[in-house]
Amino acid sequence: MEAYRHRVQYYETDRMGITHHSNYIRWMEEARVDFLRRAGWPYERLEAEGIISPVTAISCRFKASTSFPDEILIDVSVSEFKGAILKLEYLMTDLCDKTVFEGHSEHCFLDKDGKLVRLTKACPELAGIFEALAKEAAAAGPRDA
Amino acid sequence: MEAYRHRVQYYETDRMGITHHSNYIRWMEEARVDFLRRAGWPYERLEAEGIISPVTAISCRFKASTSFPDEILIDVSVSEFKGAILKLEYLMTDLCDKTVFEGHSEHCFLDKDGKLVRLTKACPELAGIFEALAKEAAAAGPRDA
Amino acid sequence: MEAYRHRVQYYETDRMGITHHSNYIRWMEEARVDFLRRAGWPYERLEAEGIISPVTAISCRFKASTSFPDEILIDVSVSEFKGAILKLEYLMTDLCDKTVFEGHSEHCFLDKDGKLVRLTKACPELAGIFEALAKEAAAAGPRDA
Amino acid sequence: MEAYRHRVQYYETDRMGITHHSNYIRWMEEARVDFLRRAGWPYERLEAEGIISPVTAISCRFKASTSFPDEILIDVSVSEFKGAILKLEYLMTDLCDKTVFEGHSEHCFLDKDGKLVRLTKACPELAGIFEALAKEAAAAGPRDA
Repeated sequence: MEAYRHRVQYYETDRMGITHHSNYIRWMEEARVDFLRRAGWPYERLEAEGIISPVTAISCRFKASTSFPDEILIDVSVSEFKGAILKLEYLMTDLCDKTVFEGHSEHCFLDKDGKLVRLTKACPELAGIFEALAKEAAAAGPRDA
Repeated sequence: MEAYRHRVQYYETDRMGITHHSNYIRWMEEARVDFLRRAGWPYERLEAEGIISPVTAISCRFKASTSFPDEILIDVSVSEFKGAILKLEYLMTDLCDKTVFEGHSEHCFLDKDGKLVRLTKACPELAGIFEALAKEAAAAGPRDA
Repeated sequence: MEAYRHRVQYYETDRMGITHHSNYIRWMEEARVDFLRRAGWPYERLEAEGIISPVTAISCRFKASTSFPDEILIDVSVSEFKGAILKLEYLMTDLCDKTVFEGHSEHCFLDKDGKLVRLTKACPELAGIFEALAKEAAAAGPRDA
Repeated sequence: MEAYRHRVQYYETDRMGITHHSNYIRWMEEARVDFLRRAGWPYERLEAEGIISPVTAISCRFKASTSFPDEILIDVSVSEFKGAILKLEYLMTDLCDKTVFEGHSEHCFLDKDGKLVRLTKACPELAGIFEALAKEAAAAGPRDA
């Protein structure tokens, strides 16, 4: 899938002169939302079905600093999907193809009452999409970072 | 009422080396929430009554820059209350009593269906508090800024 | 000039279910940066010339709420330019052309030592651009909001 | 050392009704800054010595949701210090002592030219403090989470 593109905003920098690290966590969400939209299941559709998908864990490594007004390309892939748990992988590069960030996020699925649900049961169509994307990512092999 | 105190965080600075101006708008909210709590009507109580109070307008002047790790004192007062509209005034000073920011916010009140309500009708007790605070602020006269 | 386009991010919403008002102040900056870039003088070029341009005042009115994943069009124009002071005007509309936000920002210009400078002297080329844009906006007349 | 206390702000919530996960990363920084201050070496002193300490990696787990206006206690400890690399551990609990977040951050040290430095050489006094805090944390054993 095509990479999501984010331009670093002035308000995202800090007094070190570089992008504040917390913003990369927000860009992970921006890219994830875009990824779902391109996959045909925008997040608002999931919400409309009464399902929310909170972040349960994050791990990441800041490989190189960025700053205003850099453009960042963000590539998202499904690293694991097991019905109740979704794991995504993020690779951020600058326009010279230098890796600036690598990250992972983990998500669960909750119904309106806040109870954990298996997506395979609660929303089989989207579960199928994640399964296909996980296979595709596995077939593509480890990304060059 | 005692001033609210906010310490400028590193993540609130930008690459000019100073606090990014958008954060003062957030501190206005922090101070407003604290102001309501001290007045005996925390915002979450208003929410529990089924009323929300969105910001409808803001005006402000940035008088002097601040940065990490400055401590800022924020004084809030009711400049006008007319049943359906609340206007608040904010004065931010540093620890040397230098004015760094002056601002105003305007708020309305909405019920669960998003309809405008008069607070004097929907929540007379809080309306009474605002009326008393407006009188108190008027009696104190213009603040020294 | 073409309007700047911002998609409301999930992290920009609050528990009222709508965009938190402080984010509009950040979008003003996003649109302003884009405006300067299109005008041929990206902000980073101004910084490279040793000039910074802090926000000195803001006033705005929130006309209608927005939320994730709305797309917002932001139109920027120069409402006044007097050598040492720049005033910009912002009109934000949704994709149905409904006005959601109107705002103004005021800016000064500082050199490396933090001293106020007249842009007409410190950077005549950009001053000329602002003068032309101010004339253009005046000729276009008040915007339909 | 005494836990750092953060009250969840309204602007830190999202339309799920809970604290947006990116804010915990910012609270890690708030608590870290407070930790350094209490240890006798405020971060601004490190900056004044010409050393900055960027975040190089983060990993965390969101254990329970929080929202406005919860108060969160944040406990910071040094999990590893090796001269050039500092690793910190964070435990966030609510006022009922329920763990809401566990995280780790990794930091390096850079001089004015952006070159990696060993803190043991560049700032032996602070290095000594980190060594003592690392020993203290090791002696205290794993924290109850």
